[in-house]
Amino acid sequence: MSIKVVIAGPRGRMGREAVKLIMNTAEFELVGVLDHRNGGRDLNEIEGFSSVQCPVYDQLEECFTSTSPDVLIDLTIPETGYIHTKTALLHGVRPVVGTTGFTASQLKELKALSEEKKVGTIIAPNFAIGAVLMMKFSAMAAKYFPDVEILELHHDKKLDAPSGTAVKTAQMISQQREQKKQGHPDEKETIQGARGADYEGMRIHSVRLPGLVAHQQVMFGGEGQMLTLRHDSHDRASFMSGVKVCVETVMNLETLVYGLENILD
Amino acid sequence: MSIKVVIAGPRGRMGREAVKLIMNTAEFELVGVLDHRNGGRDLNEIEGFSSVQCPVYDQLEECFTSTSPDVLIDLTIPETGYIHTKTALLHGVRPVVGTTGFTASQLKELKALSEEKKVGTIIAPNFAIGAVLMMKFSAMAAKYFPDVEILELHHDKKLDAPSGTAVKTAQMISQQREQKKQGHPDEKETIQGARGADYEGMRIHSVRLPGLVAHQQVMFGGEGQMLTLRHDSHDRASFMSGVKVCVETVMNLETLVYGLENILD
Amino acid sequence: MSIKVVIAGPRGRMGREAVKLIMNTAEFELVGVLDHRNGGRDLNEIEGFSSVQCPVYDQLEECFTSTSPDVLIDLTIPETGYIHTKTALLHGVRPVVGTTGFTASQLKELKALSEEKKVGTIIAPNFAIGAVLMMKFSAMAAKYFPDVEILELHHDKKLDAPSGTAVKTAQMISQQREQKKQGHPDEKETIQGARGADYEGMRIHSVRLPGLVAHQQVMFGGEGQMLTLRHDSHDRASFMSGVKVCVETVMNLETLVYGLENILD
Amino acid sequence: MSIKVVIAGPRGRMGREAVKLIMNTAEFELVGVLDHRNGGRDLNEIEGFSSVQCPVYDQLEECFTSTSPDVLIDLTIPETGYIHTKTALLHGVRPVVGTTGFTASQLKELKALSEEKKVGTIIAPNFAIGAVLMMKFSAMAAKYFPDVEILELHHDKKLDAPSGTAVKTAQMISQQREQKKQGHPDEKETIQGARGADYEGMRIHSVRLPGLVAHQQVMFGGEGQMLTLRHDSHDRASFMSGVKVCVETVMNLETLVYGLENILD
Repeated sequence: MSIKVVIAGPRGRMGREAVKLIMNTAEFELVGVLDHRNGGRDLNEIEGFSSVQCPVYDQLEECFTSTSPDVLIDLTIPETGYIHTKTALLHGVRPVVGTTGFTASQLKELKALSEEKKVGTIIAPNFAIGAVLMMKFSAMAAKYFPDVEILELHHDKKLDAPSGTAVKTAQMISQQREQKKQGHPDEKETIQGARGADYEGMRIHSVRLPGLVAHQQVMFGGEGQMLTLRHDSHDRASFMSGVKVCVETVMNLETLVYGLENILD
Repeated sequence: MSIKVVIAGPRGRMGREAVKLIMNTAEFELVGVLDHRNGGRDLNEIEGFSSVQCPVYDQLEECFTSTSPDVLIDLTIPETGYIHTKTALLHGVRPVVGTTGFTASQLKELKALSEEKKVGTIIAPNFAIGAVLMMKFSAMAAKYFPDVEILELHHDKKLDAPSGTAVKTAQMISQQREQKKQGHPDEKETIQGARGADYEGMRIHSVRLPGLVAHQQVMFGGEGQMLTLRHDSHDRASFMSGVKVCVETVMNLETLVYGLENILD
Repeated sequence: MSIKVVIAGPRGRMGREAVKLIMNTAEFELVGVLDHRNGGRDLNEIEGFSSVQCPVYDQLEECFTSTSPDVLIDLTIPETGYIHTKTALLHGVRPVVGTTGFTASQLKELKALSEEKKVGTIIAPNFAIGAVLMMKFSAMAAKYFPDVEILELHHDKKLDAPSGTAVKTAQMISQQREQKKQGHPDEKETIQGARGADYEGMRIHSVRLPGLVAHQQVMFGGEGQMLTLRHDSHDRASFMSGVKVCVETVMNLETLVYGLENILD
Repeated sequence: MSIKVVIAGPRGRMGREAVKLIMNTAEFELVGVLDHRNGGRDLNEIEGFSSVQCPVYDQLEECFTSTSPDVLIDLTIPETGYIHTKTALLHGVRPVVGTTGFTASQLKELKALSEEKKVGTIIAPNFAIGAVLMMKFSAMAAKYFPDVEILELHHDKKLDAPSGTAVKTAQMISQQREQKKQGHPDEKETIQGARGADYEGMRIHSVRLPGLVAHQQVMFGGEGQMLTLRHDSHDRASFMSGVKVCVETVMNLETLVYGLENILD
C-alpha cells in the first residue's frame, strides 16, 4: 500500500523537487498540496506542473479532512511550518519539516505533542543525506582523531564565510573531543589569516571560486595517516533522497526526531 | 593504576612499534616480552632496544607467572598466536592479537573460552584506525548510496590488485546493499579493463605508481551529489593508535571481539 | 574597435552559449548568424533569443557580403563546417571551428589556403581551456615523470569507457615518453580489470556514478612525490572561455592552427 | 662517456642523497667530494658511506686539479657556495648549486663570469621537479584563469604559514595576471581568518595536521569548470630527479640559469 502525502509549499524550489520526487516514487502518492494562493484549482493549472493532477487547498484542515494523508511534507517558512506541524499532529498526520527556524521551546512543545498523540515527526535542517553523513561520520571520527581541519569550497557569489554546514560540523566535532589548540604552539602567520578561522582550536578554511558549487572536506590527521571525508553537491536534486528517507521513516516513529543524522544508522 | 602489558614478537616491524607505543604511553607499563631466541636476557641487550629495560622470556607461562600482566599483545604468526591466545585466556590475561590468519573454528573456540573465563579478547586483522573507520563508514553509507566505486592506490612494488583492504571494503558494503550492476546497462569498454574489477556489480580500480604509499578512496554517487571517504597511510606508526585503543578496550570486555570496527563507536 | 563575428549554427547547444558569449563581451559584436531554416528573419524571433537583435542568413556568401565580419564561429557539423571554412577563407573571414571531424587531407588543404590568403584559422576539437591545459601540462610533465595513470570520472549515463579526452591525453603523453610497461613486472589481478585499461603501458581507469558530471585526474609518480593534474567540468558554459581566446587569437594569425593547446602559451 | 662529478657537502641530508644518486646513475661518475673535516681520507671511511670509494678533499682547487670534473654539485651554505661557484667557473667546472641564499648582485656577477668563461651554471632554490612543475603550470594557467586559491598542507611541526613554496607560487601567478580582489565584493567573515591569507587578492590557506608531510594544491576556477594542480611530497628522495636533470642540462649551457622552472620545457 502506498504512503499518501500532502506537500505544503509546492511552488518553492524545494517544493518543486518534492513534487517530482513523490510523482517518481512508486510507493508514494500525492493526494493534495497546500498553496494559499491557488486554493480550489488543480496543480496541473499552475506553471511548471502541467503533467501533475492533484487538488490544491488553501486550508490545511480541509486538506486533511478531504485527503486523509499519512504524511505532510512542509517546505514553507518557520512561522507557517510551526502551525502546520501542530495541526498535522492533531489530525494524526505525520509531519516532515525542512527548517532550521524552530525555537527550542517550539521543538519541546512539538515533541511533547508528538509523543502524546503517538504521531511521528521529523524536523530536518538539511535534507542532503551525503552532507548529513559527512557530519555524522566526522563526529564519530573525532573521537579517535582529535586533530581536524575543515575546508569548505563554494562559488564566489556566497557572502558568508565559513558556511553554515562547516560551523555545524565543527560544533558536532566539538561535542566529541575536548577543546584543543591545534598546530605548533609557536606557529606564526607571516600573512594574516593563513591558518584560517579558529573554532575551539579547530581550523576552518573557506575557498570561493567561480566554477565551484558546494563542497566540504573534513581532514583528520594522526601519526602516519590521514582520514578525509568529502561531500560535493552540484544540484538541488541532492536533497530529495533525504526527503524520501524521512517520509519512509516517519511512518514508524512515535516521537519527534530533530536532524537527519539521528535517523540514519 | 597503569595497565601491565606483555608483547609477543617484539623484534618484528609491528612489534618494534608496539614496544615504542607502550614506552611512550603513561598509563601502560611493559612488564615483559616473549622472544624464543632471547629468553633470559634483558630487552636492552637486543639491537634497537638499547634504552628499554624489560625481561625477555621464551616460555609464555613463565612470563605470565613472573609478571602477572593485564594484557598480552601478540604480533607473531597465526599458528603461534593461536596457542598464545589460549594460554593467555587460561591465565586470565586479556589477548590483543593482530592477525588475519585464524580459522572460523579457531575463532569460535576462542570466543567460547573467552566468555567462559570472562576474559576479554580482541582479534584485529587491521590496526589502522583510519582505514577501519573508512571501511565502517563505507558500509554505513552504502545503505543510502548503493552506487559506489573503490579506488585504491599503492606503490608499484605491490604484486596483487585489488588490495586486501579494497576487497574487504567491498565485502562490507555488499552486506549492506543488494547486489547491483552499476554503470549504464549498455556501457562498452573500448579498451579492456577500463571499468575496473567487478565485485558484485561494484567497481574497484587499482593504481600503482612510484611515489604512492597506501591510499584508498571510496566514492558514493547520488543524484546531484558525491560522498567520498579517503584514507592515506605513509608510515607503519599509523597502526599504533589502533593498538592503544584495543589495549584500553579489552580491559572492559568479557567476550571476544573480531575486527576493530566492532569496538569503535 | 570591436571584432565583428558571425555564428553558424546558433540554435545548437554550443551555438546558444556562443551567442550569449558574444553578447556579453564588450569587444565582440554579433553582426549575423547563419541558420538554413530561418534565413531572412531576425534572431529575436527565434525561441530562446528574444533579447538578441541580429539578422539571420541562410546563405554564407550573402551573410559575408552584407556584414563584412572579421571572424566566423562555426558550430555546425563537419561536412558543412568544411565548406563554410573554405568559403570564409576565400572572403578573408577568419574561421574558428569546433570539430573533431575534419580529415587529414581536408586539414592540409585548409592550411594551405589559410597561408596562401594570409587569413588565420583555428580548428578546435575541444574548447574547454581547463581540459586543454590539463592535457598540455600532462604531456609536459610526462617528460620528467614517465610513470602515469589516468583516472576519468563521468555520470553513469555515459556509454563508452575510457572517455575520448582520456585517450587523447594518453596519446599526447605517449609522444613525450618511450613506451613503458608500468607497475610491478609480476603484478597479478586477482579480479580481472583491477589495473584498468592498458594504453601503451599506461593505465586508464573509468569511474561511472550518478552525481558525477565530467572529471579527469592525471597522476604522475616519482620517487617520494606525486604530481596530480585535475579538471572538473559541470556546465557547458566551460567551453566559452576557449571560444573567446580563439576569436581574439585568430585575429593575429596568418596560418591554420589545430588544437587549442597550440595557441595557449 | 660518463659525466664526472664532484660533490661539496656530502655529509648533509641533501648531500647523502646526491651521493646515492650519482652512484646509482650509470652515466654519472663520482670522482671526488669536498669535506673540510675529512680531507685526505676516503669516503668509505666516513659513517654511512661504507660502500662508496672516492677521495675526499678539503681544498676545492686541489680537488679540481686532481680529478678534472665536468660538474660541481654544491650543497653547502650560501657563503661557501658562492666562493665554490666562482672557483669552479675559473677552472672550467660547471656548478649546480642548491640554494636560495645568493644576493641579486652575487647572481649578476656569477652570470657575467659564467658567460665570459662559456661555462654553464645552474642555481636552484628547489630541486623537487614536481613542485617546480606545479609552480610553472600555475603561472601558465593563471593567464587564462585569473581566479585562483592556494591550499598548502604540512605536518603540525611547521612554524610558519603560509609556506615558502605557496608564497613563491603566488608571486609567479601575480606576474601573469593583473591584481584582482577575488570572492564576492561584499563577502563577510563571521569567524576571522576563514577566507585565508590575502596575497594581492589571491587567497592562501595553510592546513597543519599530524599525518601530513608536504603538499600543495592550486585551484583555478572558471565558469562551469575547475582546474586543480597538486604536488605531494613525502620523502627527500624527491629532490634527486631534479639534481639529475640539472647535471645533464648544465653540460649544454654557456650561461647561468636561475630556477629549475627555466630549464624544464
